[in-house]
Amino acid sequence: MDTEGYVQGSFMTHSAPYQFGPRDSKQSIEEGSAFAPKFDENGLIAAMAVDADTGKPLMLAYMNEATLRETLTCGKAVYWSRSRNQRWLKGETSGEVQHIVEILTDCDQDALILRVRQMGGGCCHTHRSTCFYRRVSIPAEGGLVGLDKV
Amino acid sequence: MDTEGYVQGSFMTHSAPYQFGPRDSKQSIEEGSAFAPKFDENGLIAAMAVDADTGKPLMLAYMNEATLRETLTCGKAVYWSRSRNQRWLKGETSGEVQHIVEILTDCDQDALILRVRQMGGGCCHTHRSTCFYRRVSIPAEGGLVGLDKV
Repeated sequence: MDTEGYVQGSFMTHSAPYQFGPRDSKQSIEEGSAFAPKFDENGLIAAMAVDADTGKPLMLAYMNEATLRETLTCGKAVYWSRSRNQRWLKGETSGEVQHIVEILTDCDQDALILRVRQMGGGCCHTHRSTCFYRRVSIPAEGGLVGLDKV
Repeated sequence: MDTEGYVQGSFMTHSAPYQFGPRDSKQSIEEGSAFAPKFDENGLIAAMAVDADTGKPLMLAYMNEATLRETLTCGKAVYWSRSRNQRWLKGETSGEVQHIVEILTDCDQDALILRVRQMGGGCCHTHRSTCFYRRVSIPAEGGLVGLDKV
């Protein structure tokens, strides 16, 4: 499969400046046709990356307005690292780039789903295909809540 | 299908008190078998609810420690509403309860995926099955970024 071609065909990238819509009414936010993302008090919006083919969840991270604009422009996932407090072009050093196929937003436009093609060895820095590799295990008798690898 | 039976069989609920693990090392957080969720500076952790059968993303919301514990105890998704600043048992008034089948966490345990069985008419308050009913549409010539319903 010509992955690059698919990516280019699905999510065209441009250098033109983008404008976001106003958040002026519940009606326009929920039913309108303008993208009007809501950033939280830290200027961030949550973005869940999922595999574009399978829908498998890969990771959850955050973007600020600048890195969201950069994502729209370059067609690759650019996050804001809350722990390092800096721009984070996913895969910049590791090669584990996420090519954007499609971005979805929710009713109040305060969350994003990125449908991506994951490049490199996998999404997670632990060398797994996804960051969500453990399930919560509830102890029958109470006590310490566990995790099982899946 | 006996949904209730499946839910009960998949994710047992208890009244016993639960303990979370310590966040004392990167190794234990990433590879250990103790659930040690990380709450942000507002005391919240992001939780993406997905359909347990299809994997379809339904909504993204937040929990605090109390509502996460309540979720583990009662087997239904209990969030913390950031907009209303209060506990939010999903479906308490609408009937759109989310029965928890499984909870996954990520490498640094600061995000959750809830695999749920969505009751009622759908996940979204707009009466759609998912809150993610629009895709971002990039204008070829720049300008206002749009949304298309999917």
